[in-house]
Amino acid sequence: MERLRWQVAAVATVGLALALEALPSVLRWLRAWRRRGWQSPLRREVLFFPSQVTCTEALLQAPSKGPSGPPAGCPCSLPHGESSLSRLLGALLAARASLELCLFAFSSPQLGRAVQLLHQRGVRVRVITDCDYMALNGSQIGLLRKAGIQVRHDQDLGYMHHKFAIVDKKVLITGSLNWTTQAIQNNRENVLIMEDEEYVRLFLEEFERIWEEFNPTKYTFFPQKKRNH
Amino acid sequence: MERLRWQVAAVATVGLALALEALPSVLRWLRAWRRRGWQSPLRREVLFFPSQVTCTEALLQAPSKGPSGPPAGCPCSLPHGESSLSRLLGALLAARASLELCLFAFSSPQLGRAVQLLHQRGVRVRVITDCDYMALNGSQIGLLRKAGIQVRHDQDLGYMHHKFAIVDKKVLITGSLNWTTQAIQNNRENVLIMEDEEYVRLFLEEFERIWEEFNPTKYTFFPQKKRNH
Repeated sequence: MERLRWQVAAVATVGLALALEALPSVLRWLRAWRRRGWQSPLRREVLFFPSQVTCTEALLQAPSKGPSGPPAGCPCSLPHGESSLSRLLGALLAARASLELCLFAFSSPQLGRAVQLLHQRGVRVRVITDCDYMALNGSQIGLLRKAGIQVRHDQDLGYMHHKFAIVDKKVLITGSLNWTTQAIQNNRENVLIMEDEEYVRLFLEEFERIWEEFNPTKYTFFPQKKRNH
Repeated sequence: MERLRWQVAAVATVGLALALEALPSVLRWLRAWRRRGWQSPLRREVLFFPSQVTCTEALLQAPSKGPSGPPAGCPCSLPHGESSLSRLLGALLAARASLELCLFAFSSPQLGRAVQLLHQRGVRVRVITDCDYMALNGSQIGLLRKAGIQVRHDQDLGYMHHKFAIVDKKVLITGSLNWTTQAIQNNRENVLIMEDEEYVRLFLEEFERIWEEFNPTKYTFFPQKKRNH
């Protein structure tokens, strides 16, 4: 009996010592896990602009998951490495089911091609934009509409000034960047790419609120004139 | 000996059963902890605009931690509840040591007063802004400079289009919102308030990069004229 008690005490002591020894590793693992989530690392990325001008043809021509593989290297003279723009394109082109865009200004040809590519692949694309900016020369909105993508816009005096996208209802892309070549190549801008359930839910609710409010059945044509009657 | 073994086995079984019973709670706690961090809940907030117009006098007149308590209720006719603007003001006015502002446009009188209040309280305020917007009528930048706050600006063709603030090197405030009354009251905008070590570090690095690049000793006066010589 006495001997067993000593054995138990010895085992308990060794166990306690081992547990204390392992504590820092366990805490480190817990901290890392807090950032990562259970299965795979959650995407968290910050892009700063202006972006280096790089060739984005490989991204924009590659078939979704076709058997033919990536296209032959582009012969243009631009650098072919990564850039903030190529990373933004990559985050968008990852869409498989849905893409919500809520953008004040959209005139970048590369981002326009990416959105059309997703539409062709069967991704459900919906676009909310600002009525003032979409009428400007170079806006991509007309091209997206011609391609059959649903677009809704405001009709009021305030600006629809958001610049966010939601990929597959899983990843939020938001920041200061308007989707114009001027902004991408010349401005100081930031874009957050966040795989974050809570933020996605809140921004998706905002998107659906605005989508419903900008329903074309509610548009009042020539409101200015009507008011004068 | 035999009896002791049975006792140990019984205790072990009960222990295991209790542990399994507690597992879902432990997992729930772990998940919640992953979001919160160790000590206190980390601030994570999304503000959407346009903001309801509310009275912000109580926020802007209250002494930092003075003994006199909050001022008497403001007699104005505006609602006195919370709004996106009042929550943004609250997040800024929480600053105790430092405030970095990196803002394309800054003309909101309320936000200007909040920044001056922090400066008076001894908070180290630094402002980076865009040279085109700061020259416009109604910009707060001149008032901030007169109050003795350091301001630096770009000199190039691109816009300094960021709209972020860093409070006490601990909380990042960023989004689509320019700090103008037009944007606050009329536009669709978003602002994220994030107590997040990694994002704060990345945005602070961006701030310091720009702060150094916009050092007045590097300004070239009348660059256009010089180029013609």
